[in-house]
Amino acid sequence: MNYPGGIKHNNISKTSQSTNYANRGMNLEEELNITNKYYRDLDKAIIYKKPTPIKVAKANFISRQNVKITEAYFEMPSTTDYNGIYNGKYIDFEAKETTSSTSFPLSNIHKHQLTHLKKVFDHGGISFIIVRFTHLNETYLLFEKELDSFINSNKRKSIPIEYFKEKGYIIKDKFNPRVDYLEIIDNIGGIDNEKRN
Amino acid sequence: MNYPGGIKHNNISKTSQSTNYANRGMNLEEELNITNKYYRDLDKAIIYKKPTPIKVAKANFISRQNVKITEAYFEMPSTTDYNGIYNGKYIDFEAKETTSSTSFPLSNIHKHQLTHLKKVFDHGGISFIIVRFTHLNETYLLFEKELDSFINSNKRKSIPIEYFKEKGYIIKDKFNPRVDYLEIIDNIGGIDNEKRN
Repeated sequence: MNYPGGIKHNNISKTSQSTNYANRGMNLEEELNITNKYYRDLDKAIIYKKPTPIKVAKANFISRQNVKITEAYFEMPSTTDYNGIYNGKYIDFEAKETTSSTSFPLSNIHKHQLTHLKKVFDHGGISFIIVRFTHLNETYLLFEKELDSFINSNKRKSIPIEYFKEKGYIIKDKFNPRVDYLEIIDNIGGIDNEKRN
Repeated sequence: MNYPGGIKHNNISKTSQSTNYANRGMNLEEELNITNKYYRDLDKAIIYKKPTPIKVAKANFISRQNVKITEAYFEMPSTTDYNGIYNGKYIDFEAKETTSSTSFPLSNIHKHQLTHLKKVFDHGGISFIIVRFTHLNETYLLFEKELDSFINSNKRKSIPIEYFKEKGYIIKDKFNPRVDYLEIIDNIGGIDNEKRN
């Protein structure tokens, strides 16, 4: 269900908004947006989702304030979807859902996004992925270091859920904030950007 | 010449690309994109321009890989245009051009963008604006602290160029990188995020 730019069908055509996840009204992206707003409202962190890159081909300039785009296309994002600052540290991550209950297909993340996450880590930032297994209703945070380690030591094209359980951190389902990923970073000390065990 | 989302006419209609700046083929945004790519290629910093936010109203789903947007509108950006990581620090800035040769109109920056820059500073990031006076061909970096100080102590709706000269830093015109703003941050020590004098 991945369209270019990570846009999902229900982000565009509101009438066709049917959710795949029983008992859930929101997808991961929507929950992360609410979570990030919660963090900002509390002044805990300043983290935003980047806009989806769109290449404008044709537009009508009705006025300076009123421009109607009549032809445009989704572009591949240069980086990850989310970044910002927390506790003085640069934070950068990608978030994905999978309908698989056994593994996360690496094809869901572009290669240049993986490279980007690694570069952020190398530059001293905190980088990770958040993966939701929608049918299990389980959401995991996996730091870039463990992600990189998996990719370098495996030929598999998907990360088994056991790896997330072992090397990643489950993000507990909460009411507010919905996806409290910063709790994971708080609990492990925040700046080591790696699994401590 | 500011359209919603900071898009300029010549970013959309390539045929109408007429430049206002004698002896210049590129505007500030294009030069910053090249500069940031230069920094990334050298692995000096990982800084990107965020995509312009566009709200999609109608789209044709020809296939999963081929989506044609047929109606869309520019949205107001939530934050500033540029952010990333340099020397382990979170960097965040907004860049603007003005055709005035005497002052920079504050109306060029949205109020919530000013608030965002201040929050970044409060959270320990490096935040600033880059302003180019196109007719003078002079580009200045002004840290958030000095920007905030001006706004709090003045009722003026534009910042005179003298203020940039006194409290900001001129970014020398170079061949490569074109707009070497990190040089300013290197020279002042990088992390104080304020004018030292």
